[in-house]
Amino acid sequence: MLEKIDLKKNITKEEFKSASKKLREQLSSLQQQVLKQKLPVIILFEGWGASGKGELISDLILNLDPRWCKVHSVTRPTELERRKPVLWRYWNFVPKAGNFSVLDRSWYLDVTTARLEEDVSAKELTRRLNSINTFERELTDAGYLIIKFFVHISKKEQKERFEKLAKDRNTQWRVTEQDWKRNRQYEKYCESFEEAIGYTNTTAAPWHLISGTDRRAAALDVISAVIARVTEALNQEHQARLPAQELIQPGAYPFLPMPKLSEVPLNRTMDRDEYQKKLEEEQKQLRELHSELYLKKIPVILAFEGWDAAGKGGTIRRVAKALDPRGYQVVPIASPTPDEKARQYLWRFWKNLPRDGHIAIFDRTWYGRVLVERVENFCTEAEWSRAYREINEFERELADWGAVILKFWLQIDQEEQLRRFQSRQNNPEKSWKITDEDWRNRSKWDQYEACVNDMLKYTSTRYAPWHIIESQDKKFGRIQTLELITDAILDKCGEKHPHGKKED
Amino acid sequence: MLEKIDLKKNITKEEFKSASKKLREQLSSLQQQVLKQKLPVIILFEGWGASGKGELISDLILNLDPRWCKVHSVTRPTELERRKPVLWRYWNFVPKAGNFSVLDRSWYLDVTTARLEEDVSAKELTRRLNSINTFERELTDAGYLIIKFFVHISKKEQKERFEKLAKDRNTQWRVTEQDWKRNRQYEKYCESFEEAIGYTNTTAAPWHLISGTDRRAAALDVISAVIARVTEALNQEHQARLPAQELIQPGAYPFLPMPKLSEVPLNRTMDRDEYQKKLEEEQKQLRELHSELYLKKIPVILAFEGWDAAGKGGTIRRVAKALDPRGYQVVPIASPTPDEKARQYLWRFWKNLPRDGHIAIFDRTWYGRVLVERVENFCTEAEWSRAYREINEFERELADWGAVILKFWLQIDQEEQLRRFQSRQNNPEKSWKITDEDWRNRSKWDQYEACVNDMLKYTSTRYAPWHIIESQDKKFGRIQTLELITDAILDKCGEKHPHGKKED
Repeated sequence: MLEKIDLKKNITKEEFKSASKKLREQLSSLQQQVLKQKLPVIILFEGWGASGKGELISDLILNLDPRWCKVHSVTRPTELERRKPVLWRYWNFVPKAGNFSVLDRSWYLDVTTARLEEDVSAKELTRRLNSINTFERELTDAGYLIIKFFVHISKKEQKERFEKLAKDRNTQWRVTEQDWKRNRQYEKYCESFEEAIGYTNTTAAPWHLISGTDRRAAALDVISAVIARVTEALNQEHQARLPAQELIQPGAYPFLPMPKLSEVPLNRTMDRDEYQKKLEEEQKQLRELHSELYLKKIPVILAFEGWDAAGKGGTIRRVAKALDPRGYQVVPIASPTPDEKARQYLWRFWKNLPRDGHIAIFDRTWYGRVLVERVENFCTEAEWSRAYREINEFERELADWGAVILKFWLQIDQEEQLRRFQSRQNNPEKSWKITDEDWRNRSKWDQYEACVNDMLKYTSTRYAPWHIIESQDKKFGRIQTLELITDAILDKCGEKHPHGKKED
Repeated sequence: MLEKIDLKKNITKEEFKSASKKLREQLSSLQQQVLKQKLPVIILFEGWGASGKGELISDLILNLDPRWCKVHSVTRPTELERRKPVLWRYWNFVPKAGNFSVLDRSWYLDVTTARLEEDVSAKELTRRLNSINTFERELTDAGYLIIKFFVHISKKEQKERFEKLAKDRNTQWRVTEQDWKRNRQYEKYCESFEEAIGYTNTTAAPWHLISGTDRRAAALDVISAVIARVTEALNQEHQARLPAQELIQPGAYPFLPMPKLSEVPLNRTMDRDEYQKKLEEEQKQLRELHSELYLKKIPVILAFEGWDAAGKGGTIRRVAKALDPRGYQVVPIASPTPDEKARQYLWRFWKNLPRDGHIAIFDRTWYGRVLVERVENFCTEAEWSRAYREINEFERELADWGAVILKFWLQIDQEEQLRRFQSRQNNPEKSWKITDEDWRNRSKWDQYEACVNDMLKYTSTRYAPWHIIESQDKKFGRIQTLELITDAILDKCGEKHPHGKKED
């Protein structure tokens, strides 16, 4: 594939100056339109060392207003980044609606260069390539424009450029031993690039192969391609094109069978003495397991959903009490901030993932998409209907990273909720906890219940199972939750380290 | 000092349970008040290894709502953090108004433990201690409450705790060789703690010394102290107490003499040919210097201020064109976002500092505080009047870190501005650049001019000088700017590495 790129164009300095100025001005005025139509644009550059990516980026951004355009360089992951899922650091570069993100190298680093220079198994490589396609599809589905450039030069050209850089005292530091090695093994890298490009050359996010031999021709090619793709995207009513998705995707996921909420018994209770005894036991065990998680670098994600007043806060507090505050974080999820709203909806959850060995406790979660946002029409049917798949993919990514994932639905019945609402309202110290919104939500109980049933049906998986907690009796529910957490962690600690994942 | 703490209190489990529950509930209801009065609270824990900081934090936060309370652990700085000023990473922990930040270790790490275990000169230590006092004063002046705990145990007690941990298979990993070494050298560390505490025990941010021997007594001491300090802060009309400051602080800074704007000549021009030639020369030199900066890890901060339409954008573009896009960032400064407004005003500038070897170009700057915010009454007189000092301290911090700092005021006269406004308005492609606000600002020219003169007078320093750019002729101004930049970088590259700063 790469050898087909024409590497021999030539353009004079004068031609370039006038043509590039014109194109850049065109792009600059397109930027106003991008801002107005709130189109988020990701432009990424992959390519050979010394192929001139830096200069191409420089030419591209020169007339773009930096208020809405950021350049990011991707190098080897930092210590912290290695303690997160592979894709985590790239979510930081996902721009807000109306903004450009320009990337010098990208997530393709992990499936090309890094793959050859670190020890990545074939299985892990396939997993990463799939993750990338999923990631890009989720973004383009959400209206993102992704423009991917691969800048190509021949082995001979690269060698000559390295030699030229190495001769000049001012630039010799730019050519490392690693670079020379890569040039010698050009064919191996070429194969890896071709494989990655081939696997990820999707309709939604196609590759643009650019010849880097003539710097000027390359710059014009890049800017022209960006103008063409941005114009095309602005002319499409992107969101309107996406249809709602069928809820059932047979075979796509091995869903665990779940009962309907109406089938869940709520009659079990626990007396105070037994509760106190079990609470202390479970907390003691959890405290010890927290150390073990830390040592084994296992991340844990606890997701809490449930009816208003079902007891999420109290349950979370009982879990947290057993944990070292340096190793966990409670992540309360409220309405998205403007910054969050201007991005793909999973962005804020990616941002709040723990590092490995740590625990994140989500008080409300990404399931808001298929619960409150669905009921209240905060998103379109197309959006919430495809969210089941996106959420399963998200959790799969976390599981592949090695995380223990537990999801709790705290269940009470309507009468119990009413009792708790009334008791809160009559208690001056707790009355602030109950708002008009709680009453409004309550009036939509049936709608919510149908959504919860869909959620349980389509998102309970072996790697991220749902547990329905019988919270009618708070004490019973708390112990049930603690036991499920300790059991799942014990299971995991018995396991070997997850495949494909390497130690720091 | 530390030996005076009573290490021998004793409280029964029952007493503790009831007392701590009561205190925690009191704190939880105070949190509603903190939120309502928008009080930002920083609570930091320093102390001996195994003194029980983690458990104290756990007890403290148990009933605090995690929506407005975050725990942060401070360990050794990461690779990226080492490439920023020492205090940089701590600005990430500065909470929003109404929020709590709870820190396990803090900026005191750098003047106690780290100081003894790395090679920090006496001069650098003094500098760091001063920086800390400045940092805390700036926060408390801005209405922050800072509560500092030092948890003390004796050498013998520490040794016994280490031995106990080391005996248990589940906890032995918690005691490292380093810990044993610290215990053996207890006296040395003690001296260092005492010195740091003594130097930073300020009225605005006093230390609380806590005996960690009895875990329960310590927990009650901590929660009580937090309740007392928070209550006190809520009862004070903090901002009202702070008087406006005298502008002139003789001797505090060796200010460089600056002309008044009205004295600046604006008659120099440059013809197109000379401009083109010099532009190419200067850009070429700057391109080479950018490599050198990168290699020598010298950070560069370019700050652009000036009248509307004075040509900031065009000048910045000429500078940027010479730079590798992977090594610089243009930081456009607009009105602060809600997140930024809810914190001390320098927070957003700290966040946008480059890493060493990189260049940050600020399009408008922290001087907004003493320009637009002063003119438009967006802040109080007390706030803008003390900002001169705070800004000088901020820039001093950057200079001590090793940064080249250049500040440009782009000067044009009123007639020239009018011509440019009119020409923009008559050009359909540029008319979006001119808004009603520009006309409003123009009508306040004299007020702004007085503020600019104050700014130049009180903030031009040897380490962060102001340069008035004659932008009446844009070409002349651009070359003048480029020359100043290359000269300053050349000067710096000739220098030895800044004192006290260590290589990674």
